[in-house]
Amino acid sequence: MTFSQAILSGDRLSLARLLTKVENNTPEGRESLMELFPHTGRAHLIGMTGAPGTGKSSLVNQLALHYRRKEDKRIAIIAVDPSSPFTGGAVLGDRVRMRDLSGDSGVFIRSMASRGSLGGLAQATAGITQVFDAAGFDMVIVETVGAGQSEVDIARLAHTTIVVEAPGLGDDIQAIKAGILEIADILVVNKADRPGVENTEKALKSMLDLAHPAERIFIHHGAVMKTDAPKQKNAPAMWIPPIQRTISTEGTGIPELAQAVARHAEHLRSSGEWVDRERTRLEVELEALIREGLMNKFREDVTSEAYEKALESVIQRKTSPWEAAAGLMNGRHT
Amino acid sequence: MTFSQAILSGDRLSLARLLTKVENNTPEGRESLMELFPHTGRAHLIGMTGAPGTGKSSLVNQLALHYRRKEDKRIAIIAVDPSSPFTGGAVLGDRVRMRDLSGDSGVFIRSMASRGSLGGLAQATAGITQVFDAAGFDMVIVETVGAGQSEVDIARLAHTTIVVEAPGLGDDIQAIKAGILEIADILVVNKADRPGVENTEKALKSMLDLAHPAERIFIHHGAVMKTDAPKQKNAPAMWIPPIQRTISTEGTGIPELAQAVARHAEHLRSSGEWVDRERTRLEVELEALIREGLMNKFREDVTSEAYEKALESVIQRKTSPWEAAAGLMNGRHT
Repeated sequence: MTFSQAILSGDRLSLARLLTKVENNTPEGRESLMELFPHTGRAHLIGMTGAPGTGKSSLVNQLALHYRRKEDKRIAIIAVDPSSPFTGGAVLGDRVRMRDLSGDSGVFIRSMASRGSLGGLAQATAGITQVFDAAGFDMVIVETVGAGQSEVDIARLAHTTIVVEAPGLGDDIQAIKAGILEIADILVVNKADRPGVENTEKALKSMLDLAHPAERIFIHHGAVMKTDAPKQKNAPAMWIPPIQRTISTEGTGIPELAQAVARHAEHLRSSGEWVDRERTRLEVELEALIREGLMNKFREDVTSEAYEKALESVIQRKTSPWEAAAGLMNGRHT
Repeated sequence: MTFSQAILSGDRLSLARLLTKVENNTPEGRESLMELFPHTGRAHLIGMTGAPGTGKSSLVNQLALHYRRKEDKRIAIIAVDPSSPFTGGAVLGDRVRMRDLSGDSGVFIRSMASRGSLGGLAQATAGITQVFDAAGFDMVIVETVGAGQSEVDIARLAHTTIVVEAPGLGDDIQAIKAGILEIADILVVNKADRPGVENTEKALKSMLDLAHPAERIFIHHGAVMKTDAPKQKNAPAMWIPPIQRTISTEGTGIPELAQAVARHAEHLRSSGEWVDRERTRLEVELEALIREGLMNKFREDVTSEAYEKALESVIQRKTSPWEAAAGLMNGRHT
């Protein structure tokens, strides 16, 4: 039985082994991905992103527990943490999570603490998502440290992107959040028992107003800040990112968050946006694979002597990097 | 007179115009970069990175003022802020800075709020750095929001990377900092008049211990945490990232920070590492230009019909992304 057959039949050990091969981008991993690819396209992909200190790992944990206990869904979690090469953060995260979720075969948690390039990380995350999708997991939650563009890029490839905030993380944190807010389908104010929760919500609301100026913003679990948007018949409804309050340590607000996720999935399907997001994700992946393939081909075609010689000339300031690049690319078939 | 001649002769308006052309990657911009490239290699490139809320913009401002007033150096500042598409954060940042530095022809500030790809941003930053270098600025300070890998990637290309911290930014912020600490040549605890400064310093120190286990860590402006490292004769000294306390709003600790920067430059030159870092930076840039060039060539060679057809087949789950990429690359000359 091949890896892909074993995985399609639900074998957990094969799944774990294939994930490693995919993460390491081995030939066997790529082969299995090709076989599994026709079986993908069913899972709901959720991106969860937020700054450190927002408690998003704990929120992922609670959301997974909810899906297991209340909705009997199979959940895969991919924790993307490119930032902890020596703290062992990812491993610790696993242990905290495993306490609640361990022994449950309907849950699979995968940490990626890859130190490789971010392009490689995004590609590996895409591959691992596809393995989980083919293996029949209903939801794949990709958790990223939301701060840099690269993490945003990974998160935005989900069907539903959840951005997690928390009160009291500093005043000027707004600046960095602007880019992330643009991709949020659902906003969560976690640690909602902390002082300052109203201010955080207000700040998010006014930033949403900037991002969606013509629309109406609702705040769940809080005051409704504007009146209901007029309902237009026969027009696809516009999705307004709701703001959900949660206290993940107590499980407060988790069922409501799960409802918001379900509403968003319903919106995506009824508006046709589900298909658009699939298309965008696969196009991004295709382009990344082409870029990587072209570079690999270039490395095969150009001798390391020619490359070193060109680089040396740049370092000596005799040739500019642009001229050196053009020279190597034009001369590579000679 | 060409752009590059005007810039070499010190014309400020031509400089501003060329920066825009380089940021937009126009043919004229690339042409001028090639002409200017032989005149680069003199400036000390400083990367300054830190989370939002650490006050690093204010620190850059103070450091620039110090270099102007006490050392008569010409300073260029590049503020890389990919995260504020609609808050106008970069513009506000400029205004705050301009209050102290405006009217001084020895200072040039350039904000980059590009919304393009990060690859494009890194490439534009490299180009703009080279323009400033050729134009005779003694120091080029590149300020990035330090959180994601991409910002780290931009900052690490400097000769000297300064990582800015501040007390009270949350307990679990350490996790995300690990990757950044690895690239720090100098650590700054800004806002050192705030409570918790000792804890922040201790946390940084213990993380440095993890990163440099065999070495000794000093804390300037604070207690010496370990004894002096034994001095080895005739061996190039190992650089231990010092931890500097500053209060940028008052200018406290700025001369000491400038001294640490000067010591680091001296270390780089005496150890030969200056040349190594030049080589690394230019190699990264060369590779990025090759990647971009290969992709542009691919786009010229492959018809959009062929590309759309391959993508559609992927979306239909008939072809895997890997097969589609390989097919497009192999068929592109047919």
